[in-house]
Amino acid sequence: MNRPHNFSAGPCILPLEVFEKASQAVIDFDGSGLSILEISHRSTAFVEVMEKARSLALEHLNLQAKGYKALFMQGGASMQFLMTAYNLLEKKAGYLDTGTWSANAIKEAERFGEVKVLASSKESNYNFIPKNYSIPNGLDYLHCTSNNTIYGTQMKAFPNTGETPLICDMSSDIFSREIDYSQFDLIYAGAQKNMGPAGATLVVVKEDILGKVSRKIPSMMDYELFIKKESMFNTPPVFSVYVSMLTLEWLSRHGGVSAIEKKNRAKSELIYSEIDRNSLFEGFTAKDDRSMMNATFTLKNERLTPLFDKLWQSANLNGLNGHRSVGGYRASMYNALSIESVEVLVDVMKHFEKTI
Amino acid sequence: MNRPHNFSAGPCILPLEVFEKASQAVIDFDGSGLSILEISHRSTAFVEVMEKARSLALEHLNLQAKGYKALFMQGGASMQFLMTAYNLLEKKAGYLDTGTWSANAIKEAERFGEVKVLASSKESNYNFIPKNYSIPNGLDYLHCTSNNTIYGTQMKAFPNTGETPLICDMSSDIFSREIDYSQFDLIYAGAQKNMGPAGATLVVVKEDILGKVSRKIPSMMDYELFIKKESMFNTPPVFSVYVSMLTLEWLSRHGGVSAIEKKNRAKSELIYSEIDRNSLFEGFTAKDDRSMMNATFTLKNERLTPLFDKLWQSANLNGLNGHRSVGGYRASMYNALSIESVEVLVDVMKHFEKTI
Ligand SMILES: Cc1ncc(COP(=O)(O)O)c(C=O)c1O
Ligand SMILES: Cc1ncc(COP(=O)(O)O)c(C=O)c1O
Ligand SMILES: [Mg+2]
Ligand SMILES: [Mg+2]
Ligand SMILES: [Mg+2]
Ligand SMILES: [Mg+2]
Repeated sequence: MNRPHNFSAGPCILPLEVFEKASQAVIDFDGSGLSILEISHRSTAFVEVMEKARSLALEHLNLQAKGYKALFMQGGASMQFLMTAYNLLEKKAGYLDTGTWSANAIKEAERFGEVKVLASSKESNYNFIPKNYSIPNGLDYLHCTSNNTIYGTQMKAFPNTGETPLICDMSSDIFSREIDYSQFDLIYAGAQKNMGPAGATLVVVKEDILGKVSRKIPSMMDYELFIKKESMFNTPPVFSVYVSMLTLEWLSRHGGVSAIEKKNRAKSELIYSEIDRNSLFEGFTAKDDRSMMNATFTLKNERLTPLFDKLWQSANLNGLNGHRSVGGYRASMYNALSIESVEVLVDVMKHFEKTI
Repeated sequence: MNRPHNFSAGPCILPLEVFEKASQAVIDFDGSGLSILEISHRSTAFVEVMEKARSLALEHLNLQAKGYKALFMQGGASMQFLMTAYNLLEKKAGYLDTGTWSANAIKEAERFGEVKVLASSKESNYNFIPKNYSIPNGLDYLHCTSNNTIYGTQMKAFPNTGETPLICDMSSDIFSREIDYSQFDLIYAGAQKNMGPAGATLVVVKEDILGKVSRKIPSMMDYELFIKKESMFNTPPVFSVYVSMLTLEWLSRHGGVSAIEKKNRAKSELIYSEIDRNSLFEGFTAKDDRSMMNATFTLKNERLTPLFDKLWQSANLNGLNGHRSVGGYRASMYNALSIESVEVLVDVMKHFEKTI
């Protein structure tokens, strides 16, 4: 089968060997004769899957034995906009407004306390990451978004918040690059980019930041309860956790985050140099802030759109359309996308320039 | 392959043809060359899946064009304990306390307003459904649990609440029997029994009961917002919704709820008559309140436990252990379980009686 080159922004491509194992497990999980979909989440087999997924997540982030716990929850990253505020916002929190998802996080938090927007690039349609802002005293936490999926910007450095907890939405670039993950006190990420199918959300939290707000937290919002219950307070999203485990195992077999970062860097350099070189296209974002995961670009001459669309579609590329807030194109190049797919895209762009 | 007879309480057996289609779609969804796990939730193909699942749910409940909307959400039924209260509890709500899940729903609701427990069978370890209780005036809603998965009791009739909205947790018996679903104003059910894999939750809500509380509802808790966004405010649990759609289609092909009810009735009559007949076993619950989905029973002589366990395990039965709150055994016989599996169980019980 000739699989399309899948540049979809999320849900997105996962490794083919993960699809194959997952497909098999839907019929017969590990030779049990039962589907992964029909086993009890309290069965030894699944408890092992959950524990493996949780420990691999910490391992890839280099956060084992540093006071962090990994949880798999439901509700997507959007639920974390709410849960982080529920658990941590007593009076006042600082937010960096770097895109639609940051803005949504801000909106949810405003119901729980005062929100200080420390910096925003909204005025320029979020095409860069603000850098010079000051961090006031007395924040309960500072929240940022490491990679802005829609706009294609990525934070290359993070604010030094000292004692103030630093929270980061890493939905679209977790496990993609080596950074010091211990600078964060809480990291969350919807599975559906670099980790697994939609329906699971990874939360990695430093335990000592919890238990400090005065409000009563409902069970389903309570990180401490989920930690106590080993991420199984209620029925977890079994299949999404299982496939996440498979993807994290794949990452281990392929050299972990440091090896995948090299590949991601090569892929992004390839596409950005073509965007810059090619006379028909231009990048959407400030060059310093370009994302390794999502490259956004537009046609200088919009009237060429139908022609280019026809060309890339006929080349078996999928998911290249930009988000409506930006227009143009977005090539999402998550961990599982091969450099060959990016080469095909670059060839299409070159070919387009020659023949137009 | 000789599949085990799967009596697991949830996640639980789904139709084999659903496993087969789901397995195929993990490799290649509908001939697209893409996995169901890697397609955008905004793609036409997935929007169609979501719409089909939503409309089949209403159809099987006979609730089309009656002011109801079907939503697929995340978080499990436990999240609905919270969301129902968030959206509907202004001052005071009535709850029937018929088991652990009812009790958990009560606990979550108490954070939002006054909770009147109208009746409870807790004192007798929830082995019956309370029937004579009065319903006070001025309730925002009445909440009940149609089937108590752990204890094996099931409501055969529901309170007439007049204008007061009636909310029902149907996690473990939705789509299993023909009742007048229009007596309810809100029904919810975790997918992982009669509908699909863990990770999706069905909510069917009569729109006119919404929008009446004075509190501000966070986006991720807000039924009205999810209705407005056609159940895609954020990334839905794509695969769980897809498999739910497959199961609902399977149900249509097999005669719908009325046909499946006949089969469920036959299965439950078979097991309960053996429990009653067999001198070694006794049922846990009041006979009038016996669940068609979960039959709970115990050995009169507990010391026979290891022998019986060995016997049923060697007969390729799975998931027969009772919940720790009840002990003994629980045969969960959801829609997808064949009567042949129940026959095997009954044979094992008969054989045990003869040989002991
Ligand atoms: C950076 C980021 N944060 C949050 C979200 C929202 O995630 P979800 O749809 O899982 O709620 C997305 C979705 O694409 C995202 O890219
Ligand atoms: C009747 C009932 N309600 C609620 C729940 C809790 O569901 P979840 O684990 O999806 O939160 C269950 C779980 O088995 C149940 O059987
Ligand atoms: Mg710090
Ligand atoms: Mg250019
Ligand atoms: Mg009514
Ligand atoms: Mg008996």
